[in-house]
Amino acid sequence: MDGKIRMSLDEVRNLTESALVRLGLDERQVAAVAVTIVAGERDGCAAHGLYRLLVCARTVRAGKVTRDAQPVVRDVARALVRVDCGGGFAQIGFEAGAPVLAAKAREYGLAGLGINNCVHFSALWPEVEALARDGLVAFAFTPSHAWVAPAGGTTPIFGTNPIAFGWPRPGGDPFVFDLATSVTARGEIELHRREGQPIPLGWGLDPEGNPTTDAAQALAGAMLTFGGHKGSALAAMVELIAGPLIGDMTSVESLVADGGAGASPIGGELIIAIDPSGFLGSAAAQHLARGEQLFDGIAGQGARLPSERRYRARARSLVEGVEVPARLIAEIEALFDADAD
Amino acid sequence: MDGKIRMSLDEVRNLTESALVRLGLDERQVAAVAVTIVAGERDGCAAHGLYRLLVCARTVRAGKVTRDAQPVVRDVARALVRVDCGGGFAQIGFEAGAPVLAAKAREYGLAGLGINNCVHFSALWPEVEALARDGLVAFAFTPSHAWVAPAGGTTPIFGTNPIAFGWPRPGGDPFVFDLATSVTARGEIELHRREGQPIPLGWGLDPEGNPTTDAAQALAGAMLTFGGHKGSALAAMVELIAGPLIGDMTSVESLVADGGAGASPIGGELIIAIDPSGFLGSAAAQHLARGEQLFDGIAGQGARLPSERRYRARARSLVEGVEVPARLIAEIEALFDADAD
Repeated sequence: MDGKIRMSLDEVRNLTESALVRLGLDERQVAAVAVTIVAGERDGCAAHGLYRLLVCARTVRAGKVTRDAQPVVRDVARALVRVDCGGGFAQIGFEAGAPVLAAKAREYGLAGLGINNCVHFSALWPEVEALARDGLVAFAFTPSHAWVAPAGGTTPIFGTNPIAFGWPRPGGDPFVFDLATSVTARGEIELHRREGQPIPLGWGLDPEGNPTTDAAQALAGAMLTFGGHKGSALAAMVELIAGPLIGDMTSVESLVADGGAGASPIGGELIIAIDPSGFLGSAAAQHLARGEQLFDGIAGQGARLPSERRYRARARSLVEGVEVPARLIAEIEALFDADAD
Repeated sequence: MDGKIRMSLDEVRNLTESALVRLGLDERQVAAVAVTIVAGERDGCAAHGLYRLLVCARTVRAGKVTRDAQPVVRDVARALVRVDCGGGFAQIGFEAGAPVLAAKAREYGLAGLGINNCVHFSALWPEVEALARDGLVAFAFTPSHAWVAPAGGTTPIFGTNPIAFGWPRPGGDPFVFDLATSVTARGEIELHRREGQPIPLGWGLDPEGNPTTDAAQALAGAMLTFGGHKGSALAAMVELIAGPLIGDMTSVESLVADGGAGASPIGGELIIAIDPSGFLGSAAAQHLARGEQLFDGIAGQGARLPSERRYRARARSLVEGVEVPARLIAEIEALFDADAD
């Protein structure tokens, strides 16, 4: 059962969609959620790939997802839009809100989208990448569950609170990063626990507040922020701007609402998009081209350009498909063995 | 000469203003620049305090500052404004642009300010604090000189590229942070060199690309980003959004323009402001109050709240004044001994 199974991306999509359908999600959510899961598997981000189906199943079966949720778009200010996901997955909110966000960014120079009342995967790179492919500079932020202690503390209060950024590159894939303000993603620690692997020191604290290399202990205790007090400050920023600022939950509130179900976080997401033509008018292309010198300067000295690894994995996956642990496929199939729902 | 001199904040202001006047800056720049230097000394940020007068003098005398620069405000998009500083210090651009930024944020829900063609101190917290005191959520970014290597590299390509954030707190000082995406501020390493103190391992590389604890070697080689590849990604973001996106220089371009003068960076700054009422309407106050639970959760477990140390230093400075190294005062006075200008 420790072997790997090779699958084409179409097979990944089919498996994902059929599992989501069997969980009772309606067509809109199946399609929107599958985009993220296929992107995760395709781009080499296992924690957001097929593994997420296990989390989806737990979340849906715990009654935390409205299976036929319909997003409601509300124009709240000239350059701001909110989408109420009605308790569905965040992806339907992004799909409904992104075109409005992009239109507002082009009209006003920049714009903001608040996605509310949603169940969230915390995979933000597909969203900022899509906006950057549309020619916009994009930022995305979301809290999660209170899993991460602030620098100098031991009690979890922040989520993994990712910050994602997308920048359009003339004639190429956008420059994109999506980084948890925790040292690592929660899913990574869960994958270590599943594989029985120790985690590096510095990723988490046990429930007594001591540094630990035991994945299960860190999951029960507290994760840590990256970069000490600086990462901690950024994590607080994400809590504030993608929580109270858009009228949605903090990570502490989300974990309380979870009530021990172990479901995905619920709450909101903030996306900001800037149209380069807003600042630069017809000179936008000329200045965006100067961004290329920065990328050359990074890659030219052998340093890794963020998103490079993801695009390489994607190019490979599109040709060769992906390798998925056989045990994971078995677990996904077992979700429906007893028709547990 | 290693003693300390106690000064009131009025004395700090008088010393600062008279030095800036003797450097030939006009009234507007003297007043605007003094605000930052007094704030640095007042808030316990020595690297942005009176020490900056030495850097100012070098920068002005190298011909890098237009002494009578007048900011020109240009309304480039409905929710975006640009200020051309005409080669003066960034502070005059902030003073001219901030009221327009705030008015646009209130009108459109959010707004952006690009400050261009300026000489920059990289002290952003006074700006986001001022906007937050005005009820806005604020972000500020600026590149500097190419002093910092990307994660995995050894050649400086990024500036210290700070990210600053301000959040209005009902009835209290705003929540504010201002963090270099380098491990530490350049000024901190310079202060270590001046004091003959070693720097911690991890702050920088020598000119051969090896880790060093020698401040002078790190200044000659490369500084490092905080938090490894994540800090490096954020540093790249700052380069892009406060450089090409607003039609201004990257840190590499700024260092080339410096031409070995050792002057302050020149280039631009991006500020984004969001009006909480834009997303929340009349519910804004209620949601901002929920932010307080986050701050209680941080401070309540004994972790340090960003900006706490700065406000404590400020409260003390307002009553007791500040202690300044006697040697620094002597050096400031010596600037004008031979009427070197």
